[in-house]
Amino acid sequence: MAMDNLKQFVFALSAAASLGFVCIIFVLTWVLHFKEGLAWDGGLAEFNWHPVLIVTGFIFLQGIAIIVYRLPWTWKCSKLMMKFIHAGLNLLAFIFAAISLVAVFDFHNAAKIPNMYSLHSWLGLAVVILYSLQLVLGLGVYLIPITPVSVRAAFMPLHVYSGLFIFTSAIATALMGITEKLIFGLKDPKYKDSPPEATFVNVLGVLIVVFGALILWIATRTSWKRPNDQAFHSLHTNGGGEANTKVGPALSQLSEGLEAEAGGDVRRRSNKSDDQVD
Amino acid sequence: MAMDNLKQFVFALSAAASLGFVCIIFVLTWVLHFKEGLAWDGGLAEFNWHPVLIVTGFIFLQGIAIIVYRLPWTWKCSKLMMKFIHAGLNLLAFIFAAISLVAVFDFHNAAKIPNMYSLHSWLGLAVVILYSLQLVLGLGVYLIPITPVSVRAAFMPLHVYSGLFIFTSAIATALMGITEKLIFGLKDPKYKDSPPEATFVNVLGVLIVVFGALILWIATRTSWKRPNDQAFHSLHTNGGGEANTKVGPALSQLSEGLEAEAGGDVRRRSNKSDDQVD
Repeated sequence: MAMDNLKQFVFALSAAASLGFVCIIFVLTWVLHFKEGLAWDGGLAEFNWHPVLIVTGFIFLQGIAIIVYRLPWTWKCSKLMMKFIHAGLNLLAFIFAAISLVAVFDFHNAAKIPNMYSLHSWLGLAVVILYSLQLVLGLGVYLIPITPVSVRAAFMPLHVYSGLFIFTSAIATALMGITEKLIFGLKDPKYKDSPPEATFVNVLGVLIVVFGALILWIATRTSWKRPNDQAFHSLHTNGGGEANTKVGPALSQLSEGLEAEAGGDVRRRSNKSDDQVD
Repeated sequence: MAMDNLKQFVFALSAAASLGFVCIIFVLTWVLHFKEGLAWDGGLAEFNWHPVLIVTGFIFLQGIAIIVYRLPWTWKCSKLMMKFIHAGLNLLAFIFAAISLVAVFDFHNAAKIPNMYSLHSWLGLAVVILYSLQLVLGLGVYLIPITPVSVRAAFMPLHVYSGLFIFTSAIATALMGITEKLIFGLKDPKYKDSPPEATFVNVLGVLIVVFGALILWIATRTSWKRPNDQAFHSLHTNGGGEANTKVGPALSQLSEGLEAEAGGDVRRRSNKSDDQVD
């Protein structure tokens, strides 16, 4: 990564990480200072685990899991180790989300509030189901050694797209959840009277959106991607360039698969680029 | 575009267009059948223009504007004409959004409901302001002939990212709006009692999300992008390939700018690809 590019990356990463921490502090302040605190008693303090676990797990941890391959300091680590970290963070985020659902269902059942009536609950459940599917397919395709490279390559665009789509949907669902909770939770003064809690949690919503925007920016910059191990290795042993001509037939075949997958040949043939201007 | 690829594109496009129309029918059915209809009287029938104009303009038209360069049937049209269509659709979507805001403020003022207290209103106003900024910058950079190619190239990644971010945020904000309206608008039975209107509008929310997902899928497939005019021309006169070597110095220079912009050289040097697997 060139120095200019690295500076921009470090700036975006620091901003995302700081914002993520601020979001966690905000959601904790919300439930501990403005609301009933945290407990596992079937009451409102149990419900409060729902926003806390969603923000810390399903938004912050999932966001970090998405960009973990982008950290240049990890490019000398083996790809397999990075895959375990990526999968591990996502598994942790999934566990947080699952417990946060139990908290809500417990609370609803104890308070005799119906489950699954709102658009928030429909989309939320759909996102968690898609996330579990993404986890299982991701493990099966990229961590089980017998899966052929051709399958891994063919599945990659869908894996990347689904990952970003699920992350974005999780944030959209959280914003709907904040809206619901502020309407139902604020009685006198009401949400529309803008008490301090309303303004504070609106700010949390805005911070979550900016955190999501930064993660999506980092994840979609082509020049910030981890280089192929093969190219990276070549860069550090042969002084860069012409990696393909210096590897054996097996690696070369693999590389062709990757190139075809990434639309590299299509782009070269028709002169397409990521972002065209004229 | 290869035949297989074209079939997949036509399928995705048909699905997106049909879903978009179904969303418009759903939002019209909501306000005309379940609610007070449409009028400009300061009452609830004026409020109803808000969801109608947002879904038809700020979601459907904006979505179509985003993918208008992807239609292979337009690749023989001049890029300038396509730019006018892209800008025109976005301008129309902006006008729809602006009128939809007037409808809400009118309704709030007549009913003595405070404005701008909810997270929905904060994010909604931010999205409309960002959208107007994107429109003005887009016109200035890509439609005013004097803007240098280097500026156009440098601004393109931001233009593309902002466009997709604003579209996604518009959808997230609409989902929050649906949540608010179902809670405030349903009194007896309430939202939590799942009357037909609640289920119907929840389905509208899900359809909007799927429409958004399809637009984002179409917009981010590299192989579905409009070829550079230069490459397309070469493909149809010289039988394809080697476009760069057959053009004069001016075009060649332009092409270099584009390649550098798109990270083409970086990718070639370090063997990075859009989606890496190993």
